Amino acid sequence: MVESIQKSLIKLSILCLLAFCVSVEAKVRHYKWEVKYEFKSPDCYRKLAITINGRTPGPSIIAQQGDTIVVELKNSLLTENVAIHWHGIRQIGTPWMDGTEGVTQCPILPGDTFFYKFVVDRPGTYLYHAHYGMQREAGLYGSIRVSLPDGETEPFSYDYDRSIILNDWYHLSAYEQAVGLSSIPFVWVGEPQSILIQGRGRFNCSRPGIGAGLCNATNPECAPYALTVVPGKTYRLRLASLTALSALSFEIEGHNMTVVEADGHYVEPFVVQNLFIYSGETYSVLIKADQNPTRNYWASTKIVSRNSTTPNGLAILNYYPNHPRRSPPTIPPIGPHWNDIAPRLAQSVAIKARPGFIHPPPQTSDRVIVMLNTQNRINGNVRWSINNVSFNLPHTPYLIAYKHNLLHTFEQRPPPDNYDSANHDIFSVAKNVNATTSNGAYRLKFNTTVDIILQNANTMNPNNSETHPWHLHGHDFWVLGYGTGKFDKVNDPKKYNLVDPIMKNTVPVHPYGWTALRFRADNPGVWAFHCHIESHFYMGMGVVFEEGVERVGKLPTSIMGCGDTRGHHSP
Amino acid sequence: MVESIQKSLIKLSILCLLAFCVSVEAKVRHYKWEVKYEFKSPDCYRKLAITINGRTPGPSIIAQQGDTIVVELKNSLLTENVAIHWHGIRQIGTPWMDGTEGVTQCPILPGDTFFYKFVVDRPGTYLYHAHYGMQREAGLYGSIRVSLPDGETEPFSYDYDRSIILNDWYHLSAYEQAVGLSSIPFVWVGEPQSILIQGRGRFNCSRPGIGAGLCNATNPECAPYALTVVPGKTYRLRLASLTALSALSFEIEGHNMTVVEADGHYVEPFVVQNLFIYSGETYSVLIKADQNPTRNYWASTKIVSRNSTTPNGLAILNYYPNHPRRSPPTIPPIGPHWNDIAPRLAQSVAIKARPGFIHPPPQTSDRVIVMLNTQNRINGNVRWSINNVSFNLPHTPYLIAYKHNLLHTFEQRPPPDNYDSANHDIFSVAKNVNATTSNGAYRLKFNTTVDIILQNANTMNPNNSETHPWHLHGHDFWVLGYGTGKFDKVNDPKKYNLVDPIMKNTVPVHPYGWTALRFRADNPGVWAFHCHIESHFYMGMGVVFEEGVERVGKLPTSIMGCGDTRGHHSP
Repeated sequence: MVESIQKSLIKLSILCLLAFCVSVEAKVRHYKWEVKYEFKSPDCYRKLAITINGRTPGPSIIAQQGDTIVVELKNSLLTENVAIHWHGIRQIGTPWMDGTEGVTQCPILPGDTFFYKFVVDRPGTYLYHAHYGMQREAGLYGSIRVSLPDGETEPFSYDYDRSIILNDWYHLSAYEQAVGLSSIPFVWVGEPQSILIQGRGRFNCSRPGIGAGLCNATNPECAPYALTVVPGKTYRLRLASLTALSALSFEIEGHNMTVVEADGHYVEPFVVQNLFIYSGETYSVLIKADQNPTRNYWASTKIVSRNSTTPNGLAILNYYPNHPRRSPPTIPPIGPHWNDIAPRLAQSVAIKARPGFIHPPPQTSDRVIVMLNTQNRINGNVRWSINNVSFNLPHTPYLIAYKHNLLHTFEQRPPPDNYDSANHDIFSVAKNVNATTSNGAYRLKFNTTVDIILQNANTMNPNNSETHPWHLHGHDFWVLGYGTGKFDKVNDPKKYNLVDPIMKNTVPVHPYGWTALRFRADNPGVWAFHCHIESHFYMGMGVVFEEGVERVGKLPTSIMGCGDTRGHHSP
Repeated sequence: MVESIQKSLIKLSILCLLAFCVSVEAKVRHYKWEVKYEFKSPDCYRKLAITINGRTPGPSIIAQQGDTIVVELKNSLLTENVAIHWHGIRQIGTPWMDGTEGVTQCPILPGDTFFYKFVVDRPGTYLYHAHYGMQREAGLYGSIRVSLPDGETEPFSYDYDRSIILNDWYHLSAYEQAVGLSSIPFVWVGEPQSILIQGRGRFNCSRPGIGAGLCNATNPECAPYALTVVPGKTYRLRLASLTALSALSFEIEGHNMTVVEADGHYVEPFVVQNLFIYSGETYSVLIKADQNPTRNYWASTKIVSRNSTTPNGLAILNYYPNHPRRSPPTIPPIGPHWNDIAPRLAQSVAIKARPGFIHPPPQTSDRVIVMLNTQNRINGNVRWSINNVSFNLPHTPYLIAYKHNLLHTFEQRPPPDNYDSANHDIFSVAKNVNATTSNGAYRLKFNTTVDIILQNANTMNPNNSETHPWHLHGHDFWVLGYGTGKFDKVNDPKKYNLVDPIMKNTVPVHPYGWTALRFRADNPGVWAFHCHIESHFYMGMGVVFEEGVERVGKLPTSIMGCGDTRGHHSP
């Protein structure tokens, strides 16, 4: 008995000597973060970024299933509040810790320290990022990696585990972008200047008109990200996208990728040469370092779905012992054609639950909400609408408003469950549809099954429909199907995958297409569901679901202090 | 009787037909303001500015002595809080309405509406501006003009009354500037790009390296400010400075100016060719349109006290009926030499109370606080210190902390009343002096007389001492004297002007000089006293006075909600 404990301790010590010293015994993981502005040059161009402990991306949270995460967040911004969302963590029992300003909490004031405390109840690849205004674009994001409990193993094997966040990067501040979006006439920031791979990109500093001293191609902050691999070994790459705008394709020259996880769920493995990934999604892929080991290889990220002027993002797959900055001898892959929807749709359809890890979906649903997205002009502003309602956030968070009976703080009329599908031509620029803005919420009956049909349409520009990745807070949903054109509510449901659908928290709706989701309204709280393109949510492309709020326990006063919840907050 | 009322009504109507229709009967003046970011090009260069109702400078407050001002302030910034200070208004009986974040109130959250309500109890020329972070520099400011009660007249005559705010303008955001000031190594924004006269300047858009589309010399927003005058008439110009950094000299080609008011007090009139004016000061000058009326004249503003690269600001004195944009046929005045302190000191000394309007000062004081200002490096940061204490604001406002017994929220040890004057050489770069940061406050015995000696010194650069305009909240002070070199506490007080000193709320301390002030600690509350250069206050150049706080009435909960005052705020 004593001997066995000693052996365990020795094992633990050996574990601690390896790359990540994760104490397998610790169940509460405490992080102390300070949020502030700093000048950063992630793509060689200097701009203000919001950092955590001086870094963007911020520190990774690395934990084990069942652990409690405590993030002690100090807001050291000068005049700006903050809130952080834990993307993919369902917050079961802690809906007030979802970090969504206006929905689940008040923003954290400058000088204040807020304690986020929640359990990571499932293994997988998750994210965190600001969920207030457009602060995510300013650099406030990072990754969460949750491993299995001791003794449990993944249904696939690999030698090393690496996290890579893909992002796009603007040189204008989030403020400048937001003001443009709210201006009459509308001012669009345009395409991003760079794509960042794990926080590193490369802007061409020698372009004419670049302010002197602002751009420095030799700044080590913008040296390409190098993923060093040992020949013969297999790597699990946890890829995530937190782009502000762009849909991406990621590939590694000469190396196929086997997709094994999506948004925390095991995928029936399939092999891709390039992975399409949308903002808010995470994937694990396996790659084997089985190519000529005397050289390095390009990893390349290209924007798809928009005819973007942004150059491809580049990183280096570095075969040890080559120098990590040694350029591969080849031209980087150019990636797929931006406007070719078919392979993107095919990949979406290919993602199914892994046998042995299937969560069977309910075979029927209690309510179907069809959500047509359109671009509209409302009072002169360009807005996105769902069923002709453009969402805006209230200043009293819904969760507190429901629990504390402050129902006057937002519109009580819920948005509609459908649109005039008989008369709406999704392939044309919508006629003036009398869209309105509202902060009304959908109220879902607790423990019911809800279907959402995301219906895409034409934007305000002829022959243009965009890709929108929708993210649901507080839940995973089953992805029942994708289609092109207008959803047929009689025939399309017959084609739903009710056998082995993947569960996800973020899913794209492809141009001129539809996507069908199903989820159980079984997590008491108030949850945002929105397009993960930050400017689209800002322009109204989102909704809020309330479910079982009467079952939510006493709210902590730390989430209060704004709107009509002032005075509800004790220090 | 009826006839007399009718006559009065006719008189009132005639009054209303004239330029400013001010209802002489109204005693409460209600303003509804919305604060938000907008793109503005005050000097032809487009940048984000904080506006009020779409304008920077914001709307003028025009009132009569005794009126109650109500400003219903809606914060429509996206993620940023706000607070507005009413500069020169003593807030007698309403110390919670001073608008100083961290001292008298919590900041106003996005989406919130705050009601500022206070009485303008004295006629004169005042200002308002943001008092949170460095938002003033972002454009959030305007003027307050308080006229005499009906039937009372000024001791000087004029035909028309005009307000002009002078300002300097940076192209970098206040955020970028603040982050630089807090960085290690220190990053200084440098000299302002432009001087604005009533919100209009002119940047040279054809300079190389100016981003395309950012600068447009033909934008009407940056057409020079034109002050149209009718030949033969006399104009009262209410000049104010709200520069972020710069000391200014203002002149109008060919027109002498008679100084008649300073900071709301009548001045024994004196004539100047150019007026030196420091950030936070206001002056009224009279000019007569008595020159050749067939042409226009330049008004020119030059930076003094710093060897600035900023071009002079230019406006046009437009003789009606010449076209207001017609350039004067002359070269604009170049202004005084930047480094010539003597005329600036001479003007300071020349400002005395007007006979018949003298407020006799107390002949003795109960306490003398000498305040040496030095530039120091503290924990690697460049800071300004007073008696080796560099000020930082707490996040729980002092006023609430004192009244609600939250004394743990700030340092209880007050800063020192003096410095080691025997051993400190004010003409040299200070040796390492172990300066510290603190948010301790001076507690003044109620109804006592306090002298402040502002003692200037060398900065961290050899042979350099700057001009600092110090502004006192909640009071006017008597300006007892100015001197050069180190204040001699035995002999210099003998030279104080105790006969007819001017009362002011803002006063400069000249390079390597001292300035002596006296005030009565008779306004219950907590009051900031600080250098009005926004970056200097941010870097620690300020103090706080508490006096008679036990006499302050019940605080409105609307000022609460931050730091340890959360939960004290009811909606």
